[in-house]
Amino acid sequence: MTPGEFDIIRTYFTRPIQHSKTTRLSVGDDAAILRTPAGYDMAIAVDTLNAGVHFPLDTNPDDIGWKSLAVNLSDMAAMGATPAWFTLALSLPTVDAAWLEAFANGLFDLADRYQLDLIGGDTTRGPLSISIQIGGWVKRDMYLSRRGAQPGDRIYVSGTLGDAALALQLITTANSAVTEIDQQAVRQRLNRPTPRIELGQALVGIASACIDISDGLAADLGHILASSGCGARLSLTALPCSAELLRIETEQLRQLDHVLYGGDDYELCFTVPSQRVATFEQQCRQQQWPVSAIGEITTEPGLWLVNTAGIAERIAPQGYQHFVTKD
Amino acid sequence: MTPGEFDIIRTYFTRPIQHSKTTRLSVGDDAAILRTPAGYDMAIAVDTLNAGVHFPLDTNPDDIGWKSLAVNLSDMAAMGATPAWFTLALSLPTVDAAWLEAFANGLFDLADRYQLDLIGGDTTRGPLSISIQIGGWVKRDMYLSRRGAQPGDRIYVSGTLGDAALALQLITTANSAVTEIDQQAVRQRLNRPTPRIELGQALVGIASACIDISDGLAADLGHILASSGCGARLSLTALPCSAELLRIETEQLRQLDHVLYGGDDYELCFTVPSQRVATFEQQCRQQQWPVSAIGEITTEPGLWLVNTAGIAERIAPQGYQHFVTKD
Repeated sequence: MTPGEFDIIRTYFTRPIQHSKTTRLSVGDDAAILRTPAGYDMAIAVDTLNAGVHFPLDTNPDDIGWKSLAVNLSDMAAMGATPAWFTLALSLPTVDAAWLEAFANGLFDLADRYQLDLIGGDTTRGPLSISIQIGGWVKRDMYLSRRGAQPGDRIYVSGTLGDAALALQLITTANSAVTEIDQQAVRQRLNRPTPRIELGQALVGIASACIDISDGLAADLGHILASSGCGARLSLTALPCSAELLRIETEQLRQLDHVLYGGDDYELCFTVPSQRVATFEQQCRQQQWPVSAIGEITTEPGLWLVNTAGIAERIAPQGYQHFVTKD
Repeated sequence: MTPGEFDIIRTYFTRPIQHSKTTRLSVGDDAAILRTPAGYDMAIAVDTLNAGVHFPLDTNPDDIGWKSLAVNLSDMAAMGATPAWFTLALSLPTVDAAWLEAFANGLFDLADRYQLDLIGGDTTRGPLSISIQIGGWVKRDMYLSRRGAQPGDRIYVSGTLGDAALALQLITTANSAVTEIDQQAVRQRLNRPTPRIELGQALVGIASACIDISDGLAADLGHILASSGCGARLSLTALPCSAELLRIETEQLRQLDHVLYGGDDYELCFTVPSQRVATFEQQCRQQQWPVSAIGEITTEPGLWLVNTAGIAERIAPQGYQHFVTKD
């Protein structure tokens, strides 16, 4: 007999509750039972990865496991939450022991770094799809949201932008001029994004608004602007990109395209009120946080990019959106 | 332009928080923020429905919406929890406004009956799949689980069993002898199951173990037996089935097959310690709860069915399992 769903759950996904004293009941019942620590609220997010849509079909299963959780952890980072647990809804076309083992390895590799418990899930037959729900803790009402940016706030992003989109492009369009080392570096950004959990937590009480960049800087900063009811001016020269991106993509306009519209980077974009900027930037230097100031929130609506000549050009707050096709 | 995921979320799935004062932040940010009421724990469950696996491809979208939530509510019922919120991870192959509207109607029809808020989700492109995560409240440590059944406990089920499996059979194998009324009655059981929320809540402090019947009585009672480390004897004549099932399926062995092994009924199976049985059964009469005593928990392992002649036959604790195929 092929192993059934209960064998799969037992073999690959059942582990003793290791990390959290807040989990009262875990995998193996109709629901998990959780206790919220006194003085805390719970943050809840869900993200789905579908084969062929969110990752190329031939992606290594351990990378799929890692990334499925990473994109959810990134939502916790964007809220300034401390992740605590997750559930896994896994649809599989067939049972492939080697695939499942590698997937679970990648998943728990990342889970263990953040001391997360898998507290439940559902294993079903269907086209390959991974839907993870994550929960974490924030001190009462002390969370980051997309609202709250004010004119005059400085805009920051963590890390570098556009690498993941570039990696995806290299998969579909081979480029023999690219060195193996550079190719691996950007592919790592696509397949094994590092959620900015510690930075997100540190931003609580400092940032006025925060979002993680999953659809591209223009689109995700656009969400902050829409939620906060304001506009923004970005400085072209301040946009951070990696040495690999500059080497692989030498044409400036295409570099900019990746940086502004490329999704899947899972960096944070956030705003800091001007009166906190000096202290925050000092803290960044002390803690060696990889953040770049890229512009300023404005009263004037819209998203504007200021070039080296000081000329501002309006850019569309768009990025990857499921279903959108230009008819 | 085809509407994008953000249009879909705005048009069909964004509603003001109507019901719960515990939801601090809802749809439209990177995560929802929830406050647990003082003295309560949170129950969390997730269930996925895949097209062609969990429902026939031509199922009405409003029924799919209803059922996607109903199967999750049933998990809350099995825990004795009061459902409070849910998230929706929806994968769609294309954007079909009529489908989405009907799906949302069925979903919110049921959500409103239990005053549930949709607090977040993810809308992606992919084969049709609905993954709902549900959360609810239980008083601290006052929940029902699969463990806790003891020898001598009486075993009960709610409602009638086997109707949903019979409806599925009628879809694949037409039977002209079946009246339209009977066909509709059992199809309603398949497409619009009624989660036993109120009964589940009433069982807290009474039942020693509880599970909802999604994979079939034999399989799900089998989970209680495995978790509680005991066996059970069921009485053949006590197994409750509907008038429709008796009319449509006249062969006794096939009736039994549906009742024991048919999934998707979403009734509750639970055990009550002998010293509480008299009070509980009085309560059932007063409240007109539709429950049937079907057997007893035993020290002897295994699941046994006692026929009218008093002869016990061992039955396999099996039911529908994803992936299991007999090679």
